[in-house]
Amino acid sequence: MSNTPYAVQWQQAQLHLLDQRKLPQEKVMLVYNQAAEVAQAIKDMVVRGAPAIGIAAAYGVVLAAKNAYQIHADNWRDAIQNDLQQLAQARPTAVNLVWALQRMQTHFAKISGDPVPILLQEAQKIQQEDISANYTMGQLGSNLLSNNCRVLTHCNAGALATGGYGTALGVIRYAWAAGKIMQVYADETRPWLQGSRLTAWELLEDNIPVTLIVEGAAATLMRQQRVDWVIVGADRITANGDVANKIGTYSLAVLARQHGVKMMVVAPISTIDMQLADGNQIIIEERDPQEIITVAGKTIAPQNVNAWNPAFDVTPAALIEAIVTEKGVVMQPTIEKMQTLLSST
Amino acid sequence: MSNTPYAVQWQQAQLHLLDQRKLPQEKVMLVYNQAAEVAQAIKDMVVRGAPAIGIAAAYGVVLAAKNAYQIHADNWRDAIQNDLQQLAQARPTAVNLVWALQRMQTHFAKISGDPVPILLQEAQKIQQEDISANYTMGQLGSNLLSNNCRVLTHCNAGALATGGYGTALGVIRYAWAAGKIMQVYADETRPWLQGSRLTAWELLEDNIPVTLIVEGAAATLMRQQRVDWVIVGADRITANGDVANKIGTYSLAVLARQHGVKMMVVAPISTIDMQLADGNQIIIEERDPQEIITVAGKTIAPQNVNAWNPAFDVTPAALIEAIVTEKGVVMQPTIEKMQTLLSST
Repeated sequence: MSNTPYAVQWQQAQLHLLDQRKLPQEKVMLVYNQAAEVAQAIKDMVVRGAPAIGIAAAYGVVLAAKNAYQIHADNWRDAIQNDLQQLAQARPTAVNLVWALQRMQTHFAKISGDPVPILLQEAQKIQQEDISANYTMGQLGSNLLSNNCRVLTHCNAGALATGGYGTALGVIRYAWAAGKIMQVYADETRPWLQGSRLTAWELLEDNIPVTLIVEGAAATLMRQQRVDWVIVGADRITANGDVANKIGTYSLAVLARQHGVKMMVVAPISTIDMQLADGNQIIIEERDPQEIITVAGKTIAPQNVNAWNPAFDVTPAALIEAIVTEKGVVMQPTIEKMQTLLSST
Repeated sequence: MSNTPYAVQWQQAQLHLLDQRKLPQEKVMLVYNQAAEVAQAIKDMVVRGAPAIGIAAAYGVVLAAKNAYQIHADNWRDAIQNDLQQLAQARPTAVNLVWALQRMQTHFAKISGDPVPILLQEAQKIQQEDISANYTMGQLGSNLLSNNCRVLTHCNAGALATGGYGTALGVIRYAWAAGKIMQVYADETRPWLQGSRLTAWELLEDNIPVTLIVEGAAATLMRQQRVDWVIVGADRITANGDVANKIGTYSLAVLARQHGVKMMVVAPISTIDMQLADGNQIIIEERDPQEIITVAGKTIAPQNVNAWNPAFDVTPAALIEAIVTEKGVVMQPTIEKMQTLLSST
C-alpha cells in the first residue's frame, strides 16, 4: 500500500488529475471534461509518468466519446478522430500512451449505442491492471535485492507516475515492507525535480527513509560504496532491451557499471515496444529551454541563454542487470530474452 | 580580456565583493571593513572559487591588520590571530585560502610601523599574479585544443572565481579568441547553479556561444559525440594529481573516460597541495541541506526531507588527461610528474 493519492481519478463522470507541477507544496486536483484539455494536461505535465499518462489518455477517450455521442450519436467514432490524434501526440516518448489509446480503440467496433459504459469500464480496467502489475513487479523486483539494501532512484516512478503504488517505487515499497531496505537515495532530477518534489514526498508519506542528493553527487555516493542498486522506471523499452527513461538515467547506468552497482528497470509490459529494434529509433522529446532557465517561477540563468533540454535518454541493454515486468524478470536483457518474455504473455 | 567585473576589488581602503549569490539577476557590490565579515562572506559564498577566496582572504588580512594597528600599534600581530583563524576556517576544501594567508604572514616579521602599505601591496600582488597566471594557463590550455573544439565546463571557473579572466574559462576565452572553439556547453551545476548563474552569464557577456544543460544530460551529449574536452577548475590538487573540485566533476570525469572525451583541469600552482599524498586525504566540505531543498528562496522539496550535500568531490588522476598550471602542463598526471612541475618553479 501507499499513502500517495491516485494521480489519475475518475469521479462523478469527470477526470480528476492531481496537479504534479505544484507538488509537494500544494495538493490541487484539476477536473477535465474534454479530451483536448486532457491532451494539454499531459503535454504540460499536470500528469506525467509513462503508465499514468497512458491511463489519463484512456479516460480522455471516454470523455471524447461521451461528448461526441451527445452530438453525433451515429458517428461518434469519426467525430473523435481529432481528439484521439491530439491525445496520441501529447508526448512522443512514452509508448504507454499509444498503447492505451490502441487498447481503447479495439473496443470501438463492438460498441452499439452509448459508448461510455464499455469505454469507461476499459479505462478503469487499464488503471486497475496497472496497479496490480505494480504489486507484482514490486514483489519480483524485491526478490532481487539482498537484505540491508541501499538503493538510488531517479525521477519519480512512484504512485504518481502510475495507476498507483509505482514501478521503481513499487519495488522499493515492497522491499521496505519486507525489511530489506536500509536506505533510499533519491536524486533531485533536474530540470523538473521529480525526485525532490514527488519521490521524496511519496517516500516520506510512507515513512520510508529517504535522502535527497543532487545528480552530481551520485558518482561519489557509488564510489563510497553506499549504493547497491539503481532502480528506475521506463518510458519505452525496445526489442533488444534498450531503455528510454528520464534524462540522467543513462548517466547513472554508466556510473553504476563503473562502480559495481547494479541497474534495475521496472516497467509494465505495456512499456515494451517490440516494433523498435533498439534505442536509436526512439524519438526523444526535447522540451522548452525555459524548464532549465527557470525554477519554481524564478529565473536562475541569463534569460537569453541557449539551453538544450532533452526530456529522456537511452540506456543500452548492456548496462542493465534486470528488467522487471509483471510477467517476469529479464536478467541482462537481449532481444532473445525479450522475445521469450513477450511470447509467454 | 573578459567583460566580467572583478569579483574581488580593493577600493578606497575597503574590500568590495561582487555578491555572487545574486547574479546574474542583480549586480550588487558589498563592502567590507572587518576580517570577520570577510570570513563570513567566504562561508556564505558571497565570493567563491578557490583563487578568488584566497585573494579575498589576503585582503581580509589587510583589514585585520589595519583595524588592529589602530588599537594595538605595538602588538597588532597578536591581536589579529583570531581574525586569521576565522579566515582560515571559512571553508575547508580550497587550499588557496590557506596558501594566501600563509603568504601574507611571511611578511609580518619584516614589517615595522603601519603594516597596511606592505600587506596591501602583497594582497594586490597576489591578485595581479593570479590574473597573469590565468592568461598563461589560458594559452597553455588552448594549445591542447584542436580547431572546431566543443567543450563542456562545470561550475564556474571564470573571472568570478579568480582574480579575473578565469582558469577553465580562461582557457575557453583564450581558445575562443584564437578561433578554436565551436561550442561551449555549461552544465548548470546543482545545487548552487554556478553554471547557469555565473558561467552562462560570463560567456554571454563575452559573446561566446554557450548552451546550458542539466547535469543529467552530459552523458548523452558525450554519447552523441558532441564534446571533445571537459574543462574544469580545481579547489585542491594532491601530490599524485588527484583533484578536488565542485561536486559533479568526478561524475563528468568517469563519463568522459567512457566516451573518449578528454578531461582538462586548469588551476594555478597555489592549488597544488604536495602535503597530501592523494585525494582520500582531502577534507570535503558538507554544506547545509537547505541548499538542495530550496532554490532562489523557493522550497522545492518536502521541508523535512534529509539531504546529503557534499560541496566537492575527488577525481582520481587516472581520469585526467591534462593539469594546466601557469608553470606548465602535466599530461596524465603522476606523483613524479607533479614533483617535476613543482621543482621547476
